[in-house]
Amino acid sequence: MLNLDRMAPNIIRELIRKQEITGPTAGMSKRFAQANLVILKKEYAFDFLLFCQRNPKSCPLLDVTEPGSFNPSKIAKDADIRKDIPKYRIYRDGVYTEEVTNITGYWEDDMVGFLLGCSFTFETPLIESGIPIRHIEEHCNVPMYKTNIPCEKAGIFEGPTVVSMRPMSHKDAIRAIQITSRFPSVHGSPIHIGDPSQIGIADISRPDFGDSVTIKEGEIPVFWACGVTPQAVALQSKPSLMITHAPGHMFISDVQDEKLSVL
Amino acid sequence: MLNLDRMAPNIIRELIRKQEITGPTAGMSKRFAQANLVILKKEYAFDFLLFCQRNPKSCPLLDVTEPGSFNPSKIAKDADIRKDIPKYRIYRDGVYTEEVTNITGYWEDDMVGFLLGCSFTFETPLIESGIPIRHIEEHCNVPMYKTNIPCEKAGIFEGPTVVSMRPMSHKDAIRAIQITSRFPSVHGSPIHIGDPSQIGIADISRPDFGDSVTIKEGEIPVFWACGVTPQAVALQSKPSLMITHAPGHMFISDVQDEKLSVL
Repeated sequence: MLNLDRMAPNIIRELIRKQEITGPTAGMSKRFAQANLVILKKEYAFDFLLFCQRNPKSCPLLDVTEPGSFNPSKIAKDADIRKDIPKYRIYRDGVYTEEVTNITGYWEDDMVGFLLGCSFTFETPLIESGIPIRHIEEHCNVPMYKTNIPCEKAGIFEGPTVVSMRPMSHKDAIRAIQITSRFPSVHGSPIHIGDPSQIGIADISRPDFGDSVTIKEGEIPVFWACGVTPQAVALQSKPSLMITHAPGHMFISDVQDEKLSVL
Repeated sequence: MLNLDRMAPNIIRELIRKQEITGPTAGMSKRFAQANLVILKKEYAFDFLLFCQRNPKSCPLLDVTEPGSFNPSKIAKDADIRKDIPKYRIYRDGVYTEEVTNITGYWEDDMVGFLLGCSFTFETPLIESGIPIRHIEEHCNVPMYKTNIPCEKAGIFEGPTVVSMRPMSHKDAIRAIQITSRFPSVHGSPIHIGDPSQIGIADISRPDFGDSVTIKEGEIPVFWACGVTPQAVALQSKPSLMITHAPGHMFISDVQDEKLSVL
């Protein structure tokens, strides 16, 4: 069996390109940053780039391709975003139409790819600091919620911030704030801690995306801006065509997690 | 005499708008972030925004206006970038043509304003940590140098990174790295320390911009990516029309310096 967790990112991307890997990428090329993907036509690119710039906690850009280029040269020199992700989703006018393993046939000459940081990067140092991550312990997806915190609007793009939630002890929460503050390009520090109702979450046991996790006696929920925000916002704005990765099927970059820390 | 250092940013902006202040803004509204300004027509805006995104150390964006809007709503709700800067420079096809105190007559419906962080913000905490800043001691402008470090290209925009230099003791240099790392949105940590020739600076006593300062026995030069980079690069790319602030005549925002720290 292949040791996918220790394999170099470029080797994994090659296996993905050959469609020998078509499943979720969690745990692959450990310690290398994985990224969310949003592809839009040039006519939407300035507005979306501006949206990301104005909302850096939910939309931390790791790379943006030149219009028409499918190579994210800043984070993976030899990669091709049309082929190097195990599964893509196609959205037309804001409606999800199909899932595919290669988007070469969908590519247009004026498309721009946006690669956004993913919380996988900060979960590793949290775990290594001895902070248990509940959704990993319970083998499910992280719970995510729409909040009442509006994103800063940019052109056609607007909508609420989506957050991910990790419950932990109060002591671990303080340490988690310190650790994640080091990584502004993968969502950075939390945007809320404690009472969910203050950010418009009516029922913490019913996430809008992902799965519900156990919150133990004495634990506090800690909320980070989530990479689902830009996709959700882009969809709400109904661009004529938008291509994204399928949830959990991320782009694996050549950038080591630790290189993304500011301290 | 007015106490401009303690005056609120919106009051200072009003005095500037009435042209009662037309000089450099250093020291005004202390503890509030000042910003560099670049205004370009929409046709260049995506490339320039992408350039800033790819070169965050030299081009840290504090705000970008909506095309056609002259209000930098993220950093100063009631401001007008056409009037709230004491002096502007007009460049046509990359050539400096005139200096004006108001650009209302130059404004076009598709213009985009880029407001970029300025090292004034991190000099305050350096001084408060007891680190002497030589160009302030010597009452001159900070020395700036073109380096051999290329910026990441984006569309028409490309060129070398410009750095500012502050000489200090080796002990202060370590502390300065810690302090400025807290402020990624105003250039963040240094990009080089020590031997100037390694980054293509032939003669440290002859800066390309600003003034030469004394480097004392036992001191080490510390180099930060500089806000002159984006202007220099934009000019080199010869956009048909570009408007900037005049050197030292900055935009004073409503954002407190300390709010820009990540830790």
